[in-house]
Amino acid sequence: MKAFKAKNRHDASYYIDGILNQDRVKLSQAITITESHLESDKQLASQILQHVLPHTGNSLRIGITGVPGVGKSTFIEAFGMHLISLGFKVAILSIDPSSQRSKGSILGDKTRMEELSHSNHAYIRPSASGDTLGGVANTTAESMLLCEAAGYTIILIETVGVGQSETAVHSMTDFFLLLMLAGAGDELQGIKKGIMEMADLIVIHKADGDNINHSKAAKSKYENALHLFASNESGWSPKVTTASSTQNTGIDTIWEIIQNYQTLTVANGYFQKHRNHQKIDWMYRTIENELKRLFYNNSAIKARLPLLEEQIIASELSPVKAALNIIGEYNKTKKNV
Amino acid sequence: MKAFKAKNRHDASYYIDGILNQDRVKLSQAITITESHLESDKQLASQILQHVLPHTGNSLRIGITGVPGVGKSTFIEAFGMHLISLGFKVAILSIDPSSQRSKGSILGDKTRMEELSHSNHAYIRPSASGDTLGGVANTTAESMLLCEAAGYTIILIETVGVGQSETAVHSMTDFFLLLMLAGAGDELQGIKKGIMEMADLIVIHKADGDNINHSKAAKSKYENALHLFASNESGWSPKVTTASSTQNTGIDTIWEIIQNYQTLTVANGYFQKHRNHQKIDWMYRTIENELKRLFYNNSAIKARLPLLEEQIIASELSPVKAALNIIGEYNKTKKNV
Repeated sequence: MKAFKAKNRHDASYYIDGILNQDRVKLSQAITITESHLESDKQLASQILQHVLPHTGNSLRIGITGVPGVGKSTFIEAFGMHLISLGFKVAILSIDPSSQRSKGSILGDKTRMEELSHSNHAYIRPSASGDTLGGVANTTAESMLLCEAAGYTIILIETVGVGQSETAVHSMTDFFLLLMLAGAGDELQGIKKGIMEMADLIVIHKADGDNINHSKAAKSKYENALHLFASNESGWSPKVTTASSTQNTGIDTIWEIIQNYQTLTVANGYFQKHRNHQKIDWMYRTIENELKRLFYNNSAIKARLPLLEEQIIASELSPVKAALNIIGEYNKTKKNV
Repeated sequence: MKAFKAKNRHDASYYIDGILNQDRVKLSQAITITESHLESDKQLASQILQHVLPHTGNSLRIGITGVPGVGKSTFIEAFGMHLISLGFKVAILSIDPSSQRSKGSILGDKTRMEELSHSNHAYIRPSASGDTLGGVANTTAESMLLCEAAGYTIILIETVGVGQSETAVHSMTDFFLLLMLAGAGDELQGIKKGIMEMADLIVIHKADGDNINHSKAAKSKYENALHLFASNESGWSPKVTTASSTQNTGIDTIWEIIQNYQTLTVANGYFQKHRNHQKIDWMYRTIENELKRLFYNNSAIKARLPLLEEQIIASELSPVKAALNIIGEYNKTKKNV
């Protein structure tokens, strides 16, 4: 654990008051502290979060995914501006564990959502960097809570639809929106079935010009595909719709569908139940990640595992025996600390 | 840990020699020891497994799933007898973590596969009982290895298609076969998309009599649905076929398809690579299950978790802080042991 302290930090109350007074600069500083790997920052972040916690939860959390090229930025720009026109304050966060973004590309993020980045009612924050999806997802979820405490009433959490980060986004949002393109061949454009299964709404995007008929056909196709699958615990049947962000068509319908979802699930109790589950799961996920992190970061364990793998592949050692042996060694080292 | 010893146990060499000499009675006894929760039996099982390990791996491992009513037993009966007619020795194991089967229903299992149960070339063993899927799956995987050492050249691992056990079966087999029925409505009969995604072959079962045309239509429908999804790392495109076990039609085609899969994946190296991954994953899964088991079985932890859950739901404590707090307490208790 690094003991040195980050420069220029204020007391927790400075950030807490700032967030509760909807000060965007102090919100940004608090998120930076949340993203930091310094031990002193971690403690400060924990204090801030603990204090603003009673002021969180008052937003609708929407996850948005789709493969690169599907037009996520233009969609978020159009959808976000629509929400702002209805009086919402919108925060846009992203999860992208592969990203090695520098401060420079925060500007990149803001450029690709030009109108939003100039709105006083929008807050755009790109993905934290980090080694593990678990770590990045944790940071994003905590940033989401800070944004809620700062008065943002809609949180859009964006992810790149090619990995495991969709599950992380799904685990922290109320509604999961999947962007797709028409006419990109028969396969689901690299989208895994498991991701389709999480979708509450599939939007066939770029449904404009010559693409309108293709998009309508794709809509039917995905509707049929969704019907093939079992229904959701929420009581909601996933919907498919078409939209064009450049023509600004279908964006209002998307918001109506999301409102219908919210009305239904608030009424049947699923909305709150789902959020409670998410919070509890978050604790257990953190516990289990931390148990694994402590184990795999142990230097004796690190040195031993490649040897065990070799012995297992050579059928010299059974996988279970290998596992129990190394757990035994691990517990011994811990008692001697 | 219970220290008392099970009655009537022989030395490990008794079971090892028995298994390698293809003695079915001693194989059964060894599996019973593998399923036992007694500490002395666990050690004995580990010794037996360790010694037969070099004689394992010489079978084709086929996972078979489908919802209740799809006709798994009649299918396994027909398919197993077909394999025996081709000269294979067939072992049939099952994973069913929900089962509370008594000795009595082992008879039940044998009754529902009457021909197989009378064949000297088939070995039928029902699911072990157990509290956790991980435990049951481990036992089944170890039983599979014992069966291989006893000369069985095809292992059929059956599961009930309604839970998490499909993933466990998939994690220990070379080929995954999903049984479906035609004309059971538009939804996938309770089969989750994630299970369809694992299938190397979908068999539309009970394709006989009035049902033949429905089955052909269902075949097209599932072929279209499978085309919607991304291709597999194995280089294999999942197939769909129809079969009737009572009419014994389509059974030979299924075996041809499985052989095609094996030929392809052995040639492109995926077959062995996949098995190596499965073994390594098995070790890591066991490590992580064991880390969790040790944590959640700790009595101080057990007492504390419900309180933390309440505080989290009331937004009094953040999930991450709750997790880190309790991990800290856990590590303290361990150092004091």
